[in-house]
Amino acid sequence: MNFDHFTSPTLILDTKKCLNNIKTMAYKAKRHGLIFRPHFKTHQSRLIGNWFKQLGVNKITVSSVRMAEYFADDDWNDITIAFPVNIREIEAINSLAEKIQLNLCIENVESIDFLIKELKFKVGFFIKIDTGYNRTGIANDRYEAMDKILAKEKSSEKVKFKGFLSHTGHTYQAKSRGEILDIHEDALGKLSVLKNHYHKKYPDLIVSVGDTPSCSISEEFGNINEIRPGNFVFYDMMQFNLESCRFDQIAIAVACPVVAKHNKRNEIIIHGGAVHFSKESININNKAVYGMLVKLNKDGWKNYPEAFYLTKLSQEHGTLEVNYELLQELKIGDLVGIIPIHSCLTANLMKGYFSTENEVIGNLL
Amino acid sequence: MNFDHFTSPTLILDTKKCLNNIKTMAYKAKRHGLIFRPHFKTHQSRLIGNWFKQLGVNKITVSSVRMAEYFADDDWNDITIAFPVNIREIEAINSLAEKIQLNLCIENVESIDFLIKELKFKVGFFIKIDTGYNRTGIANDRYEAMDKILAKEKSSEKVKFKGFLSHTGHTYQAKSRGEILDIHEDALGKLSVLKNHYHKKYPDLIVSVGDTPSCSISEEFGNINEIRPGNFVFYDMMQFNLESCRFDQIAIAVACPVVAKHNKRNEIIIHGGAVHFSKESININNKAVYGMLVKLNKDGWKNYPEAFYLTKLSQEHGTLEVNYELLQELKIGDLVGIIPIHSCLTANLMKGYFSTENEVIGNLL
Repeated sequence: MNFDHFTSPTLILDTKKCLNNIKTMAYKAKRHGLIFRPHFKTHQSRLIGNWFKQLGVNKITVSSVRMAEYFADDDWNDITIAFPVNIREIEAINSLAEKIQLNLCIENVESIDFLIKELKFKVGFFIKIDTGYNRTGIANDRYEAMDKILAKEKSSEKVKFKGFLSHTGHTYQAKSRGEILDIHEDALGKLSVLKNHYHKKYPDLIVSVGDTPSCSISEEFGNINEIRPGNFVFYDMMQFNLESCRFDQIAIAVACPVVAKHNKRNEIIIHGGAVHFSKESININNKAVYGMLVKLNKDGWKNYPEAFYLTKLSQEHGTLEVNYELLQELKIGDLVGIIPIHSCLTANLMKGYFSTENEVIGNLL
Repeated sequence: MNFDHFTSPTLILDTKKCLNNIKTMAYKAKRHGLIFRPHFKTHQSRLIGNWFKQLGVNKITVSSVRMAEYFADDDWNDITIAFPVNIREIEAINSLAEKIQLNLCIENVESIDFLIKELKFKVGFFIKIDTGYNRTGIANDRYEAMDKILAKEKSSEKVKFKGFLSHTGHTYQAKSRGEILDIHEDALGKLSVLKNHYHKKYPDLIVSVGDTPSCSISEEFGNINEIRPGNFVFYDMMQFNLESCRFDQIAIAVACPVVAKHNKRNEIIIHGGAVHFSKESININNKAVYGMLVKLNKDGWKNYPEAFYLTKLSQEHGTLEVNYELLQELKIGDLVGIIPIHSCLTANLMKGYFSTENEVIGNLL
């Protein structure tokens, strides 16, 4: 990779690592007999989408109607919007439902009532289940609430029950790999009971789960039928910190120019701020950090022997805490690499990639 | 304002409040005999830029070369890039310097050496001064470091010393209005000593300061010649929390659809997440909050009698903590308003506004 021509913050994609991440997850799904419906909110790129297509993936997940439109226009024709249906978008939902297999998420009677009244074309729907993350969904044992929604289905040809969809997002708060597996197992247990409860009535129902930490490290999927991880396509510092991935699986870094050095504080100022990384942080040694320094080279990047972090972020400025030696080594105008904390938010802000194969991948949503 | 047609998160701009904010700051600068060089990184909009132009503003500040290009293409011809010069962008800097009065920020000898060697057209430069924020700049009393830069100026016709530029950004960490004023006064004192030190040799030197909290609440500007506030154009929860503005001066809110309600937790889920608000938070009652709820109405929005906050943010989801009454009142599909924590980052993500005058203001950088 030649990065001499980079003049401002540039998102680098390591193509090989990314393809490996995709293959690893696709094979894992296959090995476990799971439907692989990757979440495309992380990369938001049609070109990267095609890498999945080439591996036989033909079902995807997105997080908004707009993202569904973007990928439907690129010939994806089986899309689940893993977000509680926003009924104000009925017009766009109808347009999508006319041309693709669209699956929505329902967690209340108001939404399904509205859809039954306003839909012009058939959609599939998942009931969103909460296994303990406490963000969205119906608690896994509240059959009465689910039955109310399922009762509505019978009154209409427009809505077809597909199954239960859950996001075990509390794995992101786990303190260890073991804790991730515990949370995942707990969710599997709850979803298994739920599936057994409804299986006789709905023998084809699909149980779908999605978080990258569980999908990455677990080899147990119990009664699950479908996985929808997204972040694994790139991984990031958050996943590495959770031990969901190895460092050499992280597939993106931001190349940032060095613009100032402050010897007294052992700090380096880079062009690279909240408009590039968002303000997502993780705690390392009880301190919020916004990214980790790597050394760029012709193959992509490699670790420094010691870990240095982005410890402050303004709109355009990033502050790197380094040591005396590195402060001497790095010059004004040099490019450094920063591994982002949250690759989804960084990719969303950067709107394009420069790949280690010297390919420009733009045209993000 | 008619917002019935909003289907997904939409950034609303209260035109009157925004115009008042601009007028108030412009008049304040005039009253104090200060050059008004507003920072355009907050709104990033040519149309809003024109509102400044109509008040006689003809000098602006931006935070990147790209933003300078964007406004130079809209006939702004006196632009300061208030960011340590990124020498990798020399080609774009030369293109800008050919057509406009471009001012750069210098804080090290390497940068000025590079510019003297590579510039094809004349630029002005400010020496970036650190009055205690400890982000960028030369400490206000390190004359030797400044003299080294100034000595270089003599060797070239391409670089013209304009003065000293400082950003008293530590006012953002202040705990009270009084503390903001103390920090501001401390900076004024330091900059006054600096100005006196160099005044004889450079009688036309400009001292420029920029933070919105000080510029908003102080009536003392000592030896200052120029102010560069940016955030005041909209203000936000962070500024309101710092008491830099009144609540009724905040000029933007994001309209977000209600997609789910969780009675047991008194929580409402909206479409409105980190891709709309960034992940900037402030602490209120020892809890991180990501935005505040307001009620939308035909005039824009108004406060609820009680304060309710966005307490969790995912990529697209926002969680509002409400009470029983509000949970009953708000329906699935309703639109709620959210006052952002940091208007600069929200505007950067949203890329456009819908004004209370029913005008679509898009085409952001």
